[in-house]
Amino acid sequence: MPLITLTTDFGTKDWFVGTMKGVVLGIAPRATIVDITHEVPAGDVRAGAFALAASYKFFPRGTIHVVVVDPGVGSPRKAMVVQTNQYLFVGPDNGVLSLALAREKITAIRALENGRYFVQPVSRTFHGRDVFAPVAAHLARRVPLARFGKVLKAFSHLEWREPRRQGDQVRGEVVYIDRFGNAITDIREEIIASHGNEQWEVSIKGKGRFPVKDFYQTVSLGRAVGVIGSSGFLEMAVNGGSAKQVLGLKIGTPVLVHRTK
Amino acid sequence: MPLITLTTDFGTKDWFVGTMKGVVLGIAPRATIVDITHEVPAGDVRAGAFALAASYKFFPRGTIHVVVVDPGVGSPRKAMVVQTNQYLFVGPDNGVLSLALAREKITAIRALENGRYFVQPVSRTFHGRDVFAPVAAHLARRVPLARFGKVLKAFSHLEWREPRRQGDQVRGEVVYIDRFGNAITDIREEIIASHGNEQWEVSIKGKGRFPVKDFYQTVSLGRAVGVIGSSGFLEMAVNGGSAKQVLGLKIGTPVLVHRTK
Amino acid sequence: MPLITLTTDFGTKDWFVGTMKGVVLGIAPRATIVDITHEVPAGDVRAGAFALAASYKFFPRGTIHVVVVDPGVGSPRKAMVVQTNQYLFVGPDNGVLSLALAREKITAIRALENGRYFVQPVSRTFHGRDVFAPVAAHLARRVPLARFGKVLKAFSHLEWREPRRQGDQVRGEVVYIDRFGNAITDIREEIIASHGNEQWEVSIKGKGRFPVKDFYQTVSLGRAVGVIGSSGFLEMAVNGGSAKQVLGLKIGTPVLVHRTK
Repeated sequence: MPLITLTTDFGTKDWFVGTMKGVVLGIAPRATIVDITHEVPAGDVRAGAFALAASYKFFPRGTIHVVVVDPGVGSPRKAMVVQTNQYLFVGPDNGVLSLALAREKITAIRALENGRYFVQPVSRTFHGRDVFAPVAAHLARRVPLARFGKVLKAFSHLEWREPRRQGDQVRGEVVYIDRFGNAITDIREEIIASHGNEQWEVSIKGKGRFPVKDFYQTVSLGRAVGVIGSSGFLEMAVNGGSAKQVLGLKIGTPVLVHRTK
Repeated sequence: MPLITLTTDFGTKDWFVGTMKGVVLGIAPRATIVDITHEVPAGDVRAGAFALAASYKFFPRGTIHVVVVDPGVGSPRKAMVVQTNQYLFVGPDNGVLSLALAREKITAIRALENGRYFVQPVSRTFHGRDVFAPVAAHLARRVPLARFGKVLKAFSHLEWREPRRQGDQVRGEVVYIDRFGNAITDIREEIIASHGNEQWEVSIKGKGRFPVKDFYQTVSLGRAVGVIGSSGFLEMAVNGGSAKQVLGLKIGTPVLVHRTK
Repeated sequence: MPLITLTTDFGTKDWFVGTMKGVVLGIAPRATIVDITHEVPAGDVRAGAFALAASYKFFPRGTIHVVVVDPGVGSPRKAMVVQTNQYLFVGPDNGVLSLALAREKITAIRALENGRYFVQPVSRTFHGRDVFAPVAAHLARRVPLARFGKVLKAFSHLEWREPRRQGDQVRGEVVYIDRFGNAITDIREEIIASHGNEQWEVSIKGKGRFPVKDFYQTVSLGRAVGVIGSSGFLEMAVNGGSAKQVLGLKIGTPVLVHRTK
């Protein structure tokens, strides 16, 4: 029985996630469900997309990834299932799946339209429970994709500027801040790590210049450093502290990386 | 093996919920445990009762629902198991099960008295781990109800005023505020939704009058609207915002619904 | 298939814990994973050690306890697996396992060095996902300890003063504050409970003197009381309130217990 992962903005203070699991297990009693996170900021499609993109590939082949960050629930936005050569992705067609899908080979896309696979009556405000959870459970039971709805040719993409190297420079920005205050940028490790023994430095306007090193403790306590984080992106960190607080970083802060050797 | 759900006010920062699960799985290794929520406000029996009532029926028949919001732990309040035609409910006899049970057909009630089914020695402060978790696990293993203790004829009920329609009006109040700031009232959807194409409006003293619509996006961003929420109650919402903040609502705020057509 | 528990400071707002579980289930699909807590304060080895010590023994024999509170990740601190006569413990060698291990009979200690059992390439900042999770999964699949690395003769211990009775007094301190504001001390229940019908009182400088009783409701609402908590230590509590707030307690506040009868 495949794994089902859940990434939502439902929080954990209410019963929302619990009822999604109840619905899944009512249909697919032997499914294993893993929470990625339920603390995506409410309605923040971009943060949800990043959380999925940073985590989905650490799950075994065949995993069904369900993402519900869905500020348009109840409006006519589409719901969809996307099959790639490794995974299934289920969620609203609002861009929240698009960062992960940009790295995957897509083999099929279907709209979720067939009410037979929904909890009836479908509420207007909680498709996580009434649409996405039961569809994921039916997928876990091997219901063929074609049953859920018509073929979709395209889906919504987030605006996402992919930083490129220009000479000895790469311009990017902070796209996510984690629980430790590490500020993750959109600069992929391949861009600055694939050139042998080059050395890089990060400049942040008004904050200073910081070396790019292998791990936090290469600088003294309380000092900032750029590191290639575990999600595969350059991130700003402070040894024993929060880069967010120490450097005053936030989502969108521009970051300039330049080669020093 | 049946599902066991957990609804508590234990939070997730300590080890309390983890040890409950350790106890369950030590007795019933193949049980599946689902968290409904552990962030019921500390000691808030009413909020715990509402979380259970809003979620329990999305679980499959035979599920064992355990609720531990138990400010009287250690005092002589009773502990109990209640069997209905669909579920088992386990918790303290302080009203926390009563909202869910009001909608169920009860077939048996037993006190939890038989120390053979407890973790020994039973602590005075943590019956979640020492009484309710092991009892739920033994129930999952099909131990008959009669083994746990004597028959109870009655149990504690929360004071809960059930709003009724009076002519073209229904008077209710806010009973729960969710993570998105939606303010859920005690007015059931049947009361205002079962009369064909009637139209309704919500008045909140000092805040104004708001239409009752099908979903959030029927009003413009930042505007308030009444919707039938996914738990089956009228709730006040703000499109893209928090009704709690925008309208200054809290638990107990009176709400008047009246027919406009 | 044995249980695997997780105790970390990774929080739940990001995808860190989810990816650990993805890695575990990719290797050991039938493992059952239980969260003890992920809200150990960031880098607080002492709080992580206490959470483990208070919870590990409520899990069945054979459970694999994984603890990742690891401010030194990426530096040359060792990683290890420790076998006791009842459990396996996996974590960094920074003292976080030491409080639990002080109560256990240790039968083997091995360093985690064999990259064959890691997620490759191993990141420098997230050994929870790349080292500890896959090692736990391989342990669940019965890979012998000797495969993971060389024998270790010793491991790091936290400084931990074990309070002793001196005449009619015991001096201890607050070591942990839970979600309810209960202030747990380092004074074990054996020290003050094992002497028949002695009566004890707690003095806290500048705060007053408080009786030691069996449970919270032995004092009136809002009043403070010492109780033997469910984790086996004396704790200061306030009936219906927070001892942390009412008495202004914090980690390290000295506590003097003295016999009154």
